[in-house]
Amino acid sequence: MKTIRVVHSGLGPIGCEIARTLLGKKNVSIVGAVDIDPGKIGRDLGEILGAGRRLGAVVSDDAAAVLRKSKPHVLTHTTLSSFRDVYEQLATAARAGVHVVSSTEELVYPQLRNPALAGKLDRIARRHGAAILGTGVNPGFVMDTLALVLTGVSRHVRSIRITRRVDASTRRMPLQRKVGAGMKPAEFRELVKQGRLGHIGLLESMYLVALGLGWKLDRHTEKIEPVVADTLQETEYFTVRPGEVAGIANTASGFCGGRRVIDLDLRMYIGAPDPMDSIEIDGDPPLTFTVAGGVPGDLATVAAVVNAIPRVLESSPGLKTMLDLPIPRAFRAV
Amino acid sequence: MKTIRVVHSGLGPIGCEIARTLLGKKNVSIVGAVDIDPGKIGRDLGEILGAGRRLGAVVSDDAAAVLRKSKPHVLTHTTLSSFRDVYEQLATAARAGVHVVSSTEELVYPQLRNPALAGKLDRIARRHGAAILGTGVNPGFVMDTLALVLTGVSRHVRSIRITRRVDASTRRMPLQRKVGAGMKPAEFRELVKQGRLGHIGLLESMYLVALGLGWKLDRHTEKIEPVVADTLQETEYFTVRPGEVAGIANTASGFCGGRRVIDLDLRMYIGAPDPMDSIEIDGDPPLTFTVAGGVPGDLATVAAVVNAIPRVLESSPGLKTMLDLPIPRAFRAV
Repeated sequence: MKTIRVVHSGLGPIGCEIARTLLGKKNVSIVGAVDIDPGKIGRDLGEILGAGRRLGAVVSDDAAAVLRKSKPHVLTHTTLSSFRDVYEQLATAARAGVHVVSSTEELVYPQLRNPALAGKLDRIARRHGAAILGTGVNPGFVMDTLALVLTGVSRHVRSIRITRRVDASTRRMPLQRKVGAGMKPAEFRELVKQGRLGHIGLLESMYLVALGLGWKLDRHTEKIEPVVADTLQETEYFTVRPGEVAGIANTASGFCGGRRVIDLDLRMYIGAPDPMDSIEIDGDPPLTFTVAGGVPGDLATVAAVVNAIPRVLESSPGLKTMLDLPIPRAFRAV
Repeated sequence: MKTIRVVHSGLGPIGCEIARTLLGKKNVSIVGAVDIDPGKIGRDLGEILGAGRRLGAVVSDDAAAVLRKSKPHVLTHTTLSSFRDVYEQLATAARAGVHVVSSTEELVYPQLRNPALAGKLDRIARRHGAAILGTGVNPGFVMDTLALVLTGVSRHVRSIRITRRVDASTRRMPLQRKVGAGMKPAEFRELVKQGRLGHIGLLESMYLVALGLGWKLDRHTEKIEPVVADTLQETEYFTVRPGEVAGIANTASGFCGGRRVIDLDLRMYIGAPDPMDSIEIDGDPPLTFTVAGGVPGDLATVAAVVNAIPRVLESSPGLKTMLDLPIPRAFRAV
């Protein structure tokens, strides 16, 4: 089996863990690294990862140059959440004929909010023989891919309800900040009003499920509410006092033919009791599927990105979703 | 969307339910039916299904003639469990350029026991533009496909343990007979010795999981034991007295590099308490998934076969496994 050459872009906590995971794969070689942080540029990736050895991959903010010089097969990509914001980064990889696996939340279903831009990227990717995939744990797995897979053994599916409860204190710092931990409720609501707070990807999950089932949603509703702490909560990064925001309750419902067919209920907050995921399929047979403790978000996203590499390498070129590729599965160190 | 023309072969309980499910799909038309039962040959399928109307599909035992005359896109196939036994049936469909979705247990991974025959069928299928898939609930989903999908959010998977407990009294008559319900333990053990009793497909599941994860198994162990009733159990079809066989405990373990990496534990017996499925992944993160009540076998197999139709129609030609196709999902009536 030939060595898979990888460049990684975006050296936040998830990105660094992806790079560390790739280091453990015998048939993978990290040949380059990209980040915009001046504190990281010019340093060897091994040093940034605490790998205890130099990797010969010096961090650069010039992705095009890194891709040109290091000629990777695939770019793993963990920079920003918005498809529009990462479009140029992805197009740069596609033009270099480099496949991409990205954790950009909106890339799980980029056609939803930006069909024209998605079409443009798809054409560039096809022209240059690159496949591009957005994946992760949520969006990308628990509230979309896994739910769809479970409908594979049900018929006449009438509706789906997916619930995810995350104790945000077990998550990385950026996630705790994203859910509003430590804010005043009024501040939280103001940010929601401005569209600057809310789980990114909930609607991508909903519409991807609908797409997978052939449901054309007429409309959806979405609610983003603060979960307010009633006791003092302290994490490694935040202190949340009673009356302050512990996190977020983000729910959405999708309607088809006037009937509610998809319910997503995501609560991520500091101190959430009994974290869990559940997928309830009202079909024939009805099915209820549970993950006690829930799929741990950060590690699972790392795994989802790394594990998608072989699928993307084997894919036809273009902008893909999890619906287009063979079933996800662990990518074993060989 | 154009109408999908289907021929169904094998009008046992599962086959009839598949045909009924297909009748409920607006973009599907059943254009032919095949069975070897003299009591069914020559009758209209609608009558056999109790559909309350004639369907214009007369049951025949001449599959080649039915396929030639009715020109289906796909054959749904529920006849026998052994790949060798259904080989000619599948080859007949492939030669007619007809795709196949089959519940034949060994077809979930036909290369395992019959690589040469699988290769031969693959070549015929490719030559005539047909895709052939074996699927179902077990093998086909709970103990293989679903387990693999779940490893998609774990890394460094060390081992997998899959448990399935089925109360056989909720299943169809042939399944109750297959698990040995009502036999004397000595008779059960004798049939096991002759290779005539045991869940078909357990090793197919194990080796498909290993294939999906890139694990080359050195060896496996398998145990087939009777579950003996300690109280009187009565079903619609069987009476099981204390001391008689209520069903089967079929377990298997797979080893890789001397280490046990896959454990399958399947118990199907009349009166099994707390039916459930669970998949435990010893990885990073570790994950435990549970289906309370278990995925109901018969209906889920019906659903799995029907839901695979669109995937198989879109597939490249050849003999496929669930690893080759995009994620399973419900096939909505359009």
